[in-house]
Amino acid sequence: MQLGNVIVGQSGGPTSVINSSLVGVFKTAKDAGCPHVYGMRNGIEGLLQEQYIEMSDYVKNDLDIELLKRTPSSFLGTCRYKLPDYTKDEDTYKKIFDTLKKMDVKHFFYIGGNDSMDTIDKLSRYASIVNSDITFIGVPKTIDNDLAMTDHTPGYGSAAKYIASSMKEIIRDANTYPNESINVVEIMGRDAGWLTCASTLSRSEDCAGPDIICLPETVFDYDAFLKKISEIRREKKVITIAVSEGIKTADGKYVCEANKRSMSEDAFGHKALGGTALYLADAVGADLGIKSRGIVLSTLQRCASHIVSRRDITEAFTAGADGVQLALTGETGRMIIFERISNNPYQLKTASCPASAVANVEKLVPKEWIINDNSYISKEFDEYARPLIIGELSPFMVDGLPRHLFID
Amino acid sequence: MQLGNVIVGQSGGPTSVINSSLVGVFKTAKDAGCPHVYGMRNGIEGLLQEQYIEMSDYVKNDLDIELLKRTPSSFLGTCRYKLPDYTKDEDTYKKIFDTLKKMDVKHFFYIGGNDSMDTIDKLSRYASIVNSDITFIGVPKTIDNDLAMTDHTPGYGSAAKYIASSMKEIIRDANTYPNESINVVEIMGRDAGWLTCASTLSRSEDCAGPDIICLPETVFDYDAFLKKISEIRREKKVITIAVSEGIKTADGKYVCEANKRSMSEDAFGHKALGGTALYLADAVGADLGIKSRGIVLSTLQRCASHIVSRRDITEAFTAGADGVQLALTGETGRMIIFERISNNPYQLKTASCPASAVANVEKLVPKEWIINDNSYISKEFDEYARPLIIGELSPFMVDGLPRHLFID
Repeated sequence: MQLGNVIVGQSGGPTSVINSSLVGVFKTAKDAGCPHVYGMRNGIEGLLQEQYIEMSDYVKNDLDIELLKRTPSSFLGTCRYKLPDYTKDEDTYKKIFDTLKKMDVKHFFYIGGNDSMDTIDKLSRYASIVNSDITFIGVPKTIDNDLAMTDHTPGYGSAAKYIASSMKEIIRDANTYPNESINVVEIMGRDAGWLTCASTLSRSEDCAGPDIICLPETVFDYDAFLKKISEIRREKKVITIAVSEGIKTADGKYVCEANKRSMSEDAFGHKALGGTALYLADAVGADLGIKSRGIVLSTLQRCASHIVSRRDITEAFTAGADGVQLALTGETGRMIIFERISNNPYQLKTASCPASAVANVEKLVPKEWIINDNSYISKEFDEYARPLIIGELSPFMVDGLPRHLFID
Repeated sequence: MQLGNVIVGQSGGPTSVINSSLVGVFKTAKDAGCPHVYGMRNGIEGLLQEQYIEMSDYVKNDLDIELLKRTPSSFLGTCRYKLPDYTKDEDTYKKIFDTLKKMDVKHFFYIGGNDSMDTIDKLSRYASIVNSDITFIGVPKTIDNDLAMTDHTPGYGSAAKYIASSMKEIIRDANTYPNESINVVEIMGRDAGWLTCASTLSRSEDCAGPDIICLPETVFDYDAFLKKISEIRREKKVITIAVSEGIKTADGKYVCEANKRSMSEDAFGHKALGGTALYLADAVGADLGIKSRGIVLSTLQRCASHIVSRRDITEAFTAGADGVQLALTGETGRMIIFERISNNPYQLKTASCPASAVANVEKLVPKEWIINDNSYISKEFDEYARPLIIGELSPFMVDGLPRHLFID
């Protein structure tokens, strides 16, 4: 099958390697003879305003490809746009399909998470209703690692590497003083604790790792938390705690809601979290009379391309590339997934699944991996996650700083 | 002159390269035939409890030297201990000198900032009073770059590189959404804005850099701040602001004091700051009705050894090494300083000055460099700081994470 024109978009929260998937789509499509590879600006939201670029205008040679791979955040811009149900608002769909027809686009790729797969699912179903031959393929992306069906998601390995490295450095820093202290490190993760679990990868010959981890998968109990800290204090002066931003108390309220910061909601009804670590650090510091500090890794954990996992960035490229291969077979409404063959040696293959199986579903850390001892997380997690942070890819440093590719 | 036994300590806040100075002292002393190089645990505070190590027990070969260079935070541990006036508490001095005598130490090196130089000054003056032949040499260290007499301080270049790199990544991340937003990035600096100025090094071909910077050297006026943001909003959707943690309003109060977080003080009477960015992000977000986020770089800016400046780490080594050379000449009560010969090409030489000239003095960003236009800081700063972030030194990566040397 000959590849027609392609359009590719990026959606949802950015990652350090989302542009590697973009390059995977672009390069594979061009190599397969695709006449035009278009990039939507700000995902479907930009497409609705007919905002797109010709990728070749910006990615002109192999050096640009390598530079774009090393550029964090969504090169094309992103959005959090929820596509309406077509039975309630068909105009939006008509607008999209009219635009795609005008551009003579045959293949639509969307790099994103579970919300984005909702978009792929809806568009592919509408295409079949209106007998459009445009195919819609999802390419997985999220630092949160919360997508169903796939072994893991592109973006997670690099975020995990950043978190584990930073955790080592934070612990090294905290232990330099002889005094008692508590550091509470806040890590992204609304409902899934994959990223917070990654902080335990800092456990190694030269680092004890976090002393406590708090995941959104389990109910947060402040009294038990305080008791645990008091126990650890008997043996350690410097205590490090990793908490997910989304931990909740038994009444279902976010811990950060106890803080005064206002919470806004996005288009998908997600509350903007933040403040968990600072709140807990203040509370624990006051209750125990110990010096405490809240450290929030914030957006850096999703955009620190200066310390990516080489395996992650390579797999992100493959996810994009194999998305194009899938489109060549005529498939639609599907997302690329990873299937792990073995941990040791680490072996992976790609496959695909219906986007509907991923849309609006969240894959949490398995309950049986969350254990009630001082490690908090079972060996299975370690065996699962360690291969994902392996290898480095140096940024292109210009005058001492990482250089990025960008759209003017 | 033959080098006698050496003791070396680290004091004050850690940096990413403070261990490179430690290695500089250790290796140079050993190469000069020094029988024993001791390391105080937790600076002078540990020495008072006779807590020290034999450096050779931990740094056994060239590989350990290279690993220690790449290890952030103070390998020996640190303290914030203020030496009393000897006329009020001579016992403390007697204890120190007795311990040094017992160890047959002839040369004392202290790697630290202006508080540590107060210690060097006091100990050397006491030595002369009691006719001790022990020499006391200071090795400069601080990410804050606020030491008098020296062109710049070891530690600043790497912190500046981390801040500028992170700022580029944060700006790249923030610009991925099509919506209006404000990011307020909080950077360390109680009285001196050197680190916050470093955020402007992110200005380059591929990055506009921060839109506003707020330094402790100038009075912070919230109304003017809000007005400035409103002006920028007319042309930009995504606004990035870099603020020093120590900015103060006209009444002399820290901006973060407006926040509810309690403030504790250390032994030198320094208040623990924090909360400036979150407070301002909340305030601006509420007043302008824009999505806002506070990002606090926190301790990572002083311990992110995974992205150090090669020039900084080399200079930190030299500062330690030249401290030993200075001791060989019999000098005491002095600190190693850097003198810049030229910016282009960048040329530097070391010299020394009395520790008393550095003790308890803070070097602020020169008033004439702080200008009243959209760049906020003059070209002189750029010419001064850019050479300091040049070059990389890769961490030793083991299983995907930086490896550190540590004391059990």
